[in-house]
Amino acid sequence: MSVLPSSVEKVIEEFGRLPGVGPKSASRMAYHYLRSSNKDASKLAEALIEMENSVRTCPKCFNVTDKEVCDICSSPLRKNDKVCVVEEPLDVVAFENSGIYDGLYFVLGGVISPAEGIGAEELRFPQLKERIIELLKEEETVEIIVATNPSLEGEATASYVIDLLGSLVKDGKVKMTRLAMGLPTGADLEYADRLTLKRALEGRRDI
Amino acid sequence: MSVLPSSVEKVIEEFGRLPGVGPKSASRMAYHYLRSSNKDASKLAEALIEMENSVRTCPKCFNVTDKEVCDICSSPLRKNDKVCVVEEPLDVVAFENSGIYDGLYFVLGGVISPAEGIGAEELRFPQLKERIIELLKEEETVEIIVATNPSLEGEATASYVIDLLGSLVKDGKVKMTRLAMGLPTGADLEYADRLTLKRALEGRRDI
Repeated sequence: MSVLPSSVEKVIEEFGRLPGVGPKSASRMAYHYLRSSNKDASKLAEALIEMENSVRTCPKCFNVTDKEVCDICSSPLRKNDKVCVVEEPLDVVAFENSGIYDGLYFVLGGVISPAEGIGAEELRFPQLKERIIELLKEEETVEIIVATNPSLEGEATASYVIDLLGSLVKDGKVKMTRLAMGLPTGADLEYADRLTLKRALEGRRDI
Repeated sequence: MSVLPSSVEKVIEEFGRLPGVGPKSASRMAYHYLRSSNKDASKLAEALIEMENSVRTCPKCFNVTDKEVCDICSSPLRKNDKVCVVEEPLDVVAFENSGIYDGLYFVLGGVISPAEGIGAEELRFPQLKERIIELLKEEETVEIIVATNPSLEGEATASYVIDLLGSLVKDGKVKMTRLAMGLPTGADLEYADRLTLKRALEGRRDI
């Protein structure tokens, strides 16, 4: 005799896949929808389906967008001679919310992590190189701000970016900088406060 | 210029309605689905819709079920002369997982909470009385275990139950008990709050 209807078990299972959600929280979340007599469950379901159907990755920066090309890449106000290379779309949100950056982005789609079996071939390194070469057709020089997280994996990924674009740096076309280590090691970029982000950006170093 | 596609904002908003989920967690949860190339978002969406369509409340105990009458109320193995009155379906799960209870349940659907504007009329008090009277047609006496949480609201709700069924108690048909209060297993005495210690002392037993 199972205590829970199987459909509730299924919702708990799916919530349990989310980052930072344990079995207890997943149960609470599922029961939240059973408790309320309103239609919140179908609202979330509809929002998820709408998101899955409408969201694509920008072909230039690989951030999420619901346009052909994302608002940042297509904006005439953004400086095209700076590209901030980040791990995830949420890192872009962190920079944008701080309002301290006026260049472009490039979303790698993760970090090199041997522990999790994520190799360089799963990240968007070829697309990054291609994008930089494309930008160099219009710009004399491009600065690449390597803004991976200050973690072991982030550093390894940063090294990979440095190697990848080394020849362009030698040609004097690309300048590479790294966010200043105002960020504590092991921290997550998206949780940084505005001032920390600002100082990290201002104190970026040549690499 | 918004940083996020509106469909992503909508998913974050819906996740943010869940208990214990702040804006940051809601963002992480939404982005979890954008990061993974799999179909987890639609899996959750489908599970939610399936749950909303299949789950009803048992007409006897008001626990959630996908049957006409829930497995517990319809089981011949459960003792019909004990009713454990709880706030929420998750409380039933807690008792069932412990495997220590063989009676019936009744789910009130919350607690009286003036702070949140929840009055007695929003809970299933009339249905509780009706259910007890129904059970008394078959059983000579019924024990009601009032198992609301040991919070201010839980105590107020317990008092309400006691008043509600007072006449049945006077008639000797209903016996009411309350879960013991004291120190939880594994707790550290030095960290126990004053009220818990007071109740543990008051409820001390001979050994």
